[in-house]
Amino acid sequence: MENKLDKIMDVALKRGFFWPSAENYSDKQAGFFDYGPNGRALKENIIRIWRKELVNKEGMIEIDGCQILPKSVFVASGHLTSFNDPLITCKKCKFKIRADQLIQERTKKEVPEKLSMDEYDKLIKKNKIKCPKCKSEFSKTGIWNLMFPLGIGTERKEAYLRGESCQSIFTSFPRIFKTSRKNLPFGIAQTGKVFRNEISPRQNLLRTREFNQAEIEVFFNPETENDFKLKETKLNFHIKNKVQRISVKEAVKKKIIISNLIAHYLVLLKEFHEKLGISEKEMRFRKLEDKDKPFYSKETWDFEVLTSTGWLELVACNHRSDYDLKGHGRISKQKLDVVDEKTGKRVLPNVFELSAGIDRILYALLELNYKEDKKNERTLFSFKPKLAPVFVAIFPLVNKEGMPKVAKEIFNQLNEEFDCFYDESGSIGRRYRRQDEIGTPFCITVDGQTLKDKTVTLRFRDDLKQIRVKITDLAKKLKDLKI
Amino acid sequence: MENKLDKIMDVALKRGFFWPSAENYSDKQAGFFDYGPNGRALKENIIRIWRKELVNKEGMIEIDGCQILPKSVFVASGHLTSFNDPLITCKKCKFKIRADQLIQERTKKEVPEKLSMDEYDKLIKKNKIKCPKCKSEFSKTGIWNLMFPLGIGTERKEAYLRGESCQSIFTSFPRIFKTSRKNLPFGIAQTGKVFRNEISPRQNLLRTREFNQAEIEVFFNPETENDFKLKETKLNFHIKNKVQRISVKEAVKKKIIISNLIAHYLVLLKEFHEKLGISEKEMRFRKLEDKDKPFYSKETWDFEVLTSTGWLELVACNHRSDYDLKGHGRISKQKLDVVDEKTGKRVLPNVFELSAGIDRILYALLELNYKEDKKNERTLFSFKPKLAPVFVAIFPLVNKEGMPKVAKEIFNQLNEEFDCFYDESGSIGRRYRRQDEIGTPFCITVDGQTLKDKTVTLRFRDDLKQIRVKITDLAKKLKDLKI
Repeated sequence: MENKLDKIMDVALKRGFFWPSAENYSDKQAGFFDYGPNGRALKENIIRIWRKELVNKEGMIEIDGCQILPKSVFVASGHLTSFNDPLITCKKCKFKIRADQLIQERTKKEVPEKLSMDEYDKLIKKNKIKCPKCKSEFSKTGIWNLMFPLGIGTERKEAYLRGESCQSIFTSFPRIFKTSRKNLPFGIAQTGKVFRNEISPRQNLLRTREFNQAEIEVFFNPETENDFKLKETKLNFHIKNKVQRISVKEAVKKKIIISNLIAHYLVLLKEFHEKLGISEKEMRFRKLEDKDKPFYSKETWDFEVLTSTGWLELVACNHRSDYDLKGHGRISKQKLDVVDEKTGKRVLPNVFELSAGIDRILYALLELNYKEDKKNERTLFSFKPKLAPVFVAIFPLVNKEGMPKVAKEIFNQLNEEFDCFYDESGSIGRRYRRQDEIGTPFCITVDGQTLKDKTVTLRFRDDLKQIRVKITDLAKKLKDLKI
Repeated sequence: MENKLDKIMDVALKRGFFWPSAENYSDKQAGFFDYGPNGRALKENIIRIWRKELVNKEGMIEIDGCQILPKSVFVASGHLTSFNDPLITCKKCKFKIRADQLIQERTKKEVPEKLSMDEYDKLIKKNKIKCPKCKSEFSKTGIWNLMFPLGIGTERKEAYLRGESCQSIFTSFPRIFKTSRKNLPFGIAQTGKVFRNEISPRQNLLRTREFNQAEIEVFFNPETENDFKLKETKLNFHIKNKVQRISVKEAVKKKIIISNLIAHYLVLLKEFHEKLGISEKEMRFRKLEDKDKPFYSKETWDFEVLTSTGWLELVACNHRSDYDLKGHGRISKQKLDVVDEKTGKRVLPNVFELSAGIDRILYALLELNYKEDKKNERTLFSFKPKLAPVFVAIFPLVNKEGMPKVAKEIFNQLNEEFDCFYDESGSIGRRYRRQDEIGTPFCITVDGQTLKDKTVTLRFRDDLKQIRVKITDLAKKLKDLKI
């Protein structure tokens, strides 16, 4: 089987989705990608749908905080002590690699996430793992911190690029609580760049050093954690290597899910991914075992989607209890407890987190929507219309008889409301193919008949159907098709 | 007169527009701000209008590149040698400050941007400037580079946070030219965070260490630089301390503007700011004299808006000639000349840049739209409807008789298309005032009459007018009002 990661990378390069950053410079580094026009638009559409289906629908607050934060914030969060990977160095050639990655590759077995340095050393010894470059022995496993340090101002005061987007949410919590007049429970969301100094970034967009997160932190009173009305929605739960498809209500009853609050947000997460066009059978919620979940987490669910690389984690859902506000309160010397209007009592809010990796979602959508239509000699992305980088392309059939003028008028009119693209170069067949290749769901062609009766051809990507539509009806017609 | 910068800061803090990042942490640093919900939405709306009026209207390409770039990119751009500020240090107390800033404050005269270190020393001596903290003498003026260095991977390879957003545009130019099938002239746009290690950040959002740019680089053949048809549009030109209001055609004819291409984009820039609600009398284009313009620039126009701090630069427009592609070609060892289809000849494209500071535009919009309406005992922001953080707020008059249910149904229906806000707490008068305070142009109230005839009150922010509208007509009515 062809490697699908390479295939998607190849397609992404050719069609302007993304490419390695500074690709032609001798000192370029792995793990950095630039989004081209189609990748940027696709990313923007994913975030727009995330905002609509999760943030706005739930009345959450969205902020946009700094990417550089002072040292004490990451002391409070634990990133400076705990945000580490195990690093091994070849004694001879000094080649460096992540211990867990190399062990997993060699043994083909999953390595738990929370091993001690000693345990890695034992696994390396037991499996006789040598340097892949020079076959020499590795040094003992060391700790590699993933944060990027920086010096601010002329004093070069210690600060860091954020390794996850949520810390501004915690540092801003008191001001938001004071100015927003929200009561518990309520969510604060943020999206933006995050940075991790990975030892060995790899697999295309899946593990990079600069990437995009969309995070939601729901603040709640643990006493009222079950005050959420649940739907009958069934989810695919993956627990200790078994899949169960049961309703969230039943899952809470059976203590598979710790509370109604968590169940409520897992359902929303499923619905959000359905809006992106991912089908239920391609998704699952995997409950992490104690040995795998982060140290602050009371319960962790990984939302996973089936891709060619296996089940890929797109969103991590953590019940963080009062870990965050406790740590931030201690370091910033503030009391972060608030009055819960419902109970009338003061409480230090607990936090439930939905941390989405936007680049992974984008990668998964590229892979799941990529199609090779041999019958019609074309390749396409079958994106949902509202996800597509270009929603509608507008062409004059030929560059004469006033067709370009009419086509441009239609472009200008529709461009107010939709993401449009105008193209007049090449044969009409080639222009259709090029739009298929980037997943444009609809194309409009101005032809001879247009000049007579003011109708145009509306062409559908998926079934290649073509219909005639009056120019004056286009806006309404397209609006109905934007699903 | 009250200091308007402080006033806006105060209002921004109270109403969730922005606040100092990590404000409660002992090691917080100056020059970092987090955007709260209303600031984030306002910023997003500015960028959306920028995209529509400049990027999409002109058929430009928009990318989203990395913020961390390898050293050689900034060797090519000249940032490592030329992106400097003059730094002086007190010999006694070691207080550090920007030489030009301090001289300007003390002499109340503008200091040219391109002085040598010697010239600063002379000005300090001539004006007898001492340390503002301890009155001692300053050391000689030194060079302070504004870039933030970083180490990538286990080898800590030298890299930097970008000091302006445009470098990815130049590093990606060959791939974009190859895959986009564009011909000269065409623009590539990018928006996102940039970082500068300012010596002394100050004035609220106006000079910070982490901020947002929206940049456009137009690539063109200098031989066809005048092939743009110009409108008769008049602009306010400020040249050598004199203002002239003449048409761009005349300005090109009189050699005030170097070419039609530049005139074309200056007009677009004016139109974009008008869409944001800034009036012509509040804007001007200032031509920089040779001693003030960047070293790579053949001609520089600063787009400025009149605020309480004086004329404030919002967008820098630079004719960068072939400076960028020459430098990048040399360092990356590529030939960056391309065939211009129009002339059939190979050419190294020249670049015209429109570099907008989004945070400054946001600050200017806050200041220009802030109003104190004493007659009606309220303060408001008179934002254009499509710029406002909340477009329409929906209230039940009282929390009974089924009014919240109807109001929530209207919220859910309108939230699909508009930025909506639902509020049921406090008196209706207070709820209106709170929306005025963040500039919400329209409020909808569900009252007793609604339950009888399915109409609601639509209330207008600016003139406080209230009209009755059928629920079924709301979406259309609001769409017409979204200007």
